[in-house]
Amino acid sequence: MKIALAGAVWLALAGSAFAAEGMWQPSQLPALKDSLLKAGLELDLKDLTDLTKHPMRAIVGLGGCSAAFVSPNGLVVTNHHCAYGSIQFNSTPERNLLANGFLAKTTADELPSEPTARVYVTESIAEVTDKVLKGISTSITPRERFNQIDAKRKALVTECELDPGHRCDVYTFHGGLSFQLIKQIEIRDVRLVYAPSESIGKYGGDVDNWIWPRHTGDFTFIRAYVGPDGRAREFHKDNVPYQPKDYLKVNPQGLAEGDMVLLAGYPGRTSRKQISSEVRRAAAWAFPTLIREYRAVLELIGAAEKADPAVGLKYASATAGLNNSLKNFEGTLYGFRRAEIVSDRLKAEKALKNWIKADAARVKSYGDVITELELLLEQQSKTQDRDFYYDFPSRVVFQSATGGNTLATTALRPQLLGVAKNLYRLSLERQKPNAERELGYQERDEVRILGGLAIIDRRFDASLDQAIWLYRIGRYHQLDSSQRVPSFDKYFGLVAGQPLPADLATRIRAMYTASTLATADARMALYKAKPQEFQRSSDPFIKLALAVHADDMAMEEARKTLDGRSTLLRSRQMAAEIAFRASRSELVYPDANSSLRVTYGKVTTVNPRDGVSNAAFTTLNGLLEKQTGEEPFNSPAPLLKAIRERRFGPYAAPSLNSVPVNFLADLDITGGNSGSATMNAKGEFVGVVFDGNYEAISSNWAFNTELTRSIHVDVRYMLWIMDAIDGADNLLIEMGVTPAL
Amino acid sequence: MKIALAGAVWLALAGSAFAAEGMWQPSQLPALKDSLLKAGLELDLKDLTDLTKHPMRAIVGLGGCSAAFVSPNGLVVTNHHCAYGSIQFNSTPERNLLANGFLAKTTADELPSEPTARVYVTESIAEVTDKVLKGISTSITPRERFNQIDAKRKALVTECELDPGHRCDVYTFHGGLSFQLIKQIEIRDVRLVYAPSESIGKYGGDVDNWIWPRHTGDFTFIRAYVGPDGRAREFHKDNVPYQPKDYLKVNPQGLAEGDMVLLAGYPGRTSRKQISSEVRRAAAWAFPTLIREYRAVLELIGAAEKADPAVGLKYASATAGLNNSLKNFEGTLYGFRRAEIVSDRLKAEKALKNWIKADAARVKSYGDVITELELLLEQQSKTQDRDFYYDFPSRVVFQSATGGNTLATTALRPQLLGVAKNLYRLSLERQKPNAERELGYQERDEVRILGGLAIIDRRFDASLDQAIWLYRIGRYHQLDSSQRVPSFDKYFGLVAGQPLPADLATRIRAMYTASTLATADARMALYKAKPQEFQRSSDPFIKLALAVHADDMAMEEARKTLDGRSTLLRSRQMAAEIAFRASRSELVYPDANSSLRVTYGKVTTVNPRDGVSNAAFTTLNGLLEKQTGEEPFNSPAPLLKAIRERRFGPYAAPSLNSVPVNFLADLDITGGNSGSATMNAKGEFVGVVFDGNYEAISSNWAFNTELTRSIHVDVRYMLWIMDAIDGADNLLIEMGVTPAL
Repeated sequence: MKIALAGAVWLALAGSAFAAEGMWQPSQLPALKDSLLKAGLELDLKDLTDLTKHPMRAIVGLGGCSAAFVSPNGLVVTNHHCAYGSIQFNSTPERNLLANGFLAKTTADELPSEPTARVYVTESIAEVTDKVLKGISTSITPRERFNQIDAKRKALVTECELDPGHRCDVYTFHGGLSFQLIKQIEIRDVRLVYAPSESIGKYGGDVDNWIWPRHTGDFTFIRAYVGPDGRAREFHKDNVPYQPKDYLKVNPQGLAEGDMVLLAGYPGRTSRKQISSEVRRAAAWAFPTLIREYRAVLELIGAAEKADPAVGLKYASATAGLNNSLKNFEGTLYGFRRAEIVSDRLKAEKALKNWIKADAARVKSYGDVITELELLLEQQSKTQDRDFYYDFPSRVVFQSATGGNTLATTALRPQLLGVAKNLYRLSLERQKPNAERELGYQERDEVRILGGLAIIDRRFDASLDQAIWLYRIGRYHQLDSSQRVPSFDKYFGLVAGQPLPADLATRIRAMYTASTLATADARMALYKAKPQEFQRSSDPFIKLALAVHADDMAMEEARKTLDGRSTLLRSRQMAAEIAFRASRSELVYPDANSSLRVTYGKVTTVNPRDGVSNAAFTTLNGLLEKQTGEEPFNSPAPLLKAIRERRFGPYAAPSLNSVPVNFLADLDITGGNSGSATMNAKGEFVGVVFDGNYEAISSNWAFNTELTRSIHVDVRYMLWIMDAIDGADNLLIEMGVTPAL
Repeated sequence: MKIALAGAVWLALAGSAFAAEGMWQPSQLPALKDSLLKAGLELDLKDLTDLTKHPMRAIVGLGGCSAAFVSPNGLVVTNHHCAYGSIQFNSTPERNLLANGFLAKTTADELPSEPTARVYVTESIAEVTDKVLKGISTSITPRERFNQIDAKRKALVTECELDPGHRCDVYTFHGGLSFQLIKQIEIRDVRLVYAPSESIGKYGGDVDNWIWPRHTGDFTFIRAYVGPDGRAREFHKDNVPYQPKDYLKVNPQGLAEGDMVLLAGYPGRTSRKQISSEVRRAAAWAFPTLIREYRAVLELIGAAEKADPAVGLKYASATAGLNNSLKNFEGTLYGFRRAEIVSDRLKAEKALKNWIKADAARVKSYGDVITELELLLEQQSKTQDRDFYYDFPSRVVFQSATGGNTLATTALRPQLLGVAKNLYRLSLERQKPNAERELGYQERDEVRILGGLAIIDRRFDASLDQAIWLYRIGRYHQLDSSQRVPSFDKYFGLVAGQPLPADLATRIRAMYTASTLATADARMALYKAKPQEFQRSSDPFIKLALAVHADDMAMEEARKTLDGRSTLLRSRQMAAEIAFRASRSELVYPDANSSLRVTYGKVTTVNPRDGVSNAAFTTLNGLLEKQTGEEPFNSPAPLLKAIRERRFGPYAAPSLNSVPVNFLADLDITGGNSGSATMNAKGEFVGVVFDGNYEAISSNWAFNTELTRSIHVDVRYMLWIMDAIDGADNLLIEMGVTPAL
């Protein structure tokens, strides 16, 4: 185990104001000692920093979600929404686990999760900045630098993954200033243990998504299984529960307002270090464009659904995803306005610039960085509309302009063209040694590609797919000649400035009629195909894919060139920022990058708007108030009965005169933190985080101490549900809690 | 001036708990003395009860809205939304007073209001129960009783209106237990003096409608004009400002949380005395049906609008009205659930029943009342679907099942058929002496009818009208044979239980093609027509109107019979209720009926939901927070600038560190109270009421002390807007306020 830290950021935090902002690397915690103690920490700081010690050893990732061990027998608690796929996977119309919930009374009753479910236990975090950057000359082009870094990273990963049962990745921090090789045990036999019914676990649904006050029992239990030798392997009947080196002790007393909370998990991506021009672009172009286009596609789906309800079923998940993203985008723009994020960023940037200007050495090191980043942005912006409309979401748009928001993409693009391009690219990449293949097309990615090919049928309607594509071509065609893809224009006879060809719709319809890619067999037949087979294919989508391939590659190449410049500039920007903040005795946490982070703060209220105060805790009363009997406010009858009879047992909070359901804290989280165990000052388990308030959506761009809040399921609600409603006595006992009801 | 009170309700209020519930008749106030003093009243109670004294003499009605004189020169303050029609009436594309606001710097600049605008000054309230009921035998049928009462009321009104410049009406209290003849000066020359821009006066629009926290400057000033002799007459250039006998003094200090508030106005209609079965019918049938049907019609309008935007413009006002009602209906159902109104009513009813049962005399007087009302309801319910679908909104549905909610009706029914029926009915009624004509078809109603005929063109689209009618016939046709209109069925060949005739759509389309009623000339030509001319007409809508006339009249007759029974039963129910409550030393206020009422309470917060506390005051901060730059959150730039510069003058409340914008009180109001002046304990003007919170929508059915709140514009916001933004110094000075900014 080795946790080191790049750069000179080992500083005591001056003033140590107890601020909740910060997604800290575990290795940064010693520098926050004063702040942590002031916050009330009752753990040994050295333990907290050590991944091999309690409680960090109990924290796990699920790939996109976080979780924690809560028993010596591999029992893991996470969000209901993190295990949703596995609950759905085990549901049938006759045995609907989403609707009815599920409880395995013994381990023998536990059900296999969906095939892609994983539990990742971080085993080591190795500082590899030197290894990655070693020998890279400063005189090469940014593009070449990008390639060399890429190759080094792939080599490190390949070497690390020689240890079976492990997944390794090189993570980039501070935009390329430092790199860490993170090695995780990849537990592949994950089983469903207990899930409350959806009317508890998904209570409030989309209506309450990102809303406080909240009353959602968003928790589920799964269990990690390994082979009898203790090593991770695929599902096998002889597998045994994994014995974690550590687990969190459940504290059934929960928290009170003002108490310290501590949380460790895997936050996905934030954009807090972008320069003000980038934030302005996001506010002025990216989000408004996304909102408009998502709405347009939702309208097309809605029209198709109205004509044929079967289409609605196929696109139900896409619609949910698009609406979810839409609410996110709107919330982000709301936050931009509300918290004046652009002008705040501008102020911070001015302060940095002034600090640089004040010293000749600084000017030499960093004087050009902001200007260079602005020039880069200008260049990226030149083709942003083309990137958006021709090939949305392009990597550039996705990563830089949306701050890492999850985008519901599948329904937005022509799926058969996507398949054709993907399969052809795979065939080309397979010509290279594995280590040299493009990321996403390596051997380790093939299972995922195969799964993607299989699932299309369930989410595809040819007529709607072409309606969406036609719409998107129409948008693309409004671009002037500076943002065109010549081979694409040529293929369809598009001329910038001219009307769309009269036969476009007919030609596109003919492509769908002629193509066989809508059938799984045809797709699978091409999965192992050689490039030559594609070149001989008469499938119209494959022909189009090949026709535009050179342009696609040229655009990818251009993007990579920009990415290379970006990495170089961003790392210099962050070096400046870190040095500047160090001069004020402040510590800089890196933007989220899906690696393990720690955040701490307190249980607290929020005043979200003029005239509104929100309590830190919600109670069972809210379930009675919200009850409509219809989804998503359809609490099960036994739960309503127990509330009316005030059958609270030891789970009520005397100060609330009810059982606390959810609570607010001022923790700094983002997507990926979902399912993170909430710990008290002693590192005991007291809840699960599952959402942020509406005002927190824009916190991907800027954390606002007054407004940004995390939303947690209270441990007392979990235990009450398990005890009073679902009779999960076996699990309570396994976690050391005595059933009382 | 004579304010008497029917029945034995002159009782001191026991305990005099300071409750905000109660729309009190001014004459009831002496009985509330203890409660009023405890609330903090600093006025002489005798004055408050006397319509000729301060402050009641300053309170006026606008017909559907309330208002108050605030200067000796006839200046009246009310809501922006109450004067909306007049602002719109004076707007042109070149001079858009809605968008830009309006300020007359001198009386010469004041603009005539829309022609139907009125200011009603209540001159006397005469108890006429004895006159109305005198000589009515108890042995006649309820239907005959209804007729006799109707005739007596008309006679009283006719006699009263012999005094020129006055409008008289006999109001029914306690469902027919008592009657009052109310005589009002009808001021017909009303001029627009000052209105802030819509972006202030309608700030928040539909989004914030019924929502707290609120930031709406919903106030406007108008002025009453009369002839030089002081008598009311039509607009005339020689008219002079009316000199009211009293006006409210403006107190620029406003109120603080906990302060007493007093409010007098003209609440329209409430349904708080309906029996539990009636409330259950509203919750289980009326509102769900209304919601479903309003949504269906909105969808038809939406589809038509999509095909032709011009249709959208014609139906913009209908769409707004339908959406507004829809939000109201949904809010009512929410309140029914939330406040458990049905079960509360059941409990209250049981208490009443037990009280009756406990005494033989009571059993004799009231023993059958609830049961009889239930039987009546059962009978009404038998044809409720027919009444709803054939002729929505029937009077029965409108008055009893929706609790007096304003219904947006025009767009819901076939308009040309409505015109045909109305004109034919008018021709028939004109055959009778004026006093015997049906209410709504008397000479005093003709101007209104004429106006209705003129306005249709602006709100009518033949193709959409028939689509809506076809939809409604389809719904009607689903009814079984017990709820049919034979002549209507015969006209279209409808047979209950059979599919709709194949030629129905064609026939209906042909009716629209053949009819001339869509042209104003044709309608006007029939305005004075004799019944014989209708009988000779070949217009298909007139032919249909005549064909179904006998059935329509039979249904009306049946309704009136039920109404007669209802009046009799309801008055006995209320006599029982009043006696019961008197036995507990409690006073009963009558359901609202558009007559002058007083409500009092205090400025207070609300906790609307689990985890949410709302402040009593909003501030200018909220305007910055809500600002999007787009309607309805588009505050004018000078206002935003003044806020950012904290140019608050003397209007800021030190405790809020800002200017208060709106505030909450626990007053008991409903539609019709809009524009009522909010007074402090001394009867000084401190604001204008304009809305209730979402939880207050269902207060038409039951007032909830915890949740029901009224929403007011704070006088300080009004003065600040007038002073800092709009420069209305002339009006400030007229009201005795010194401009400060």
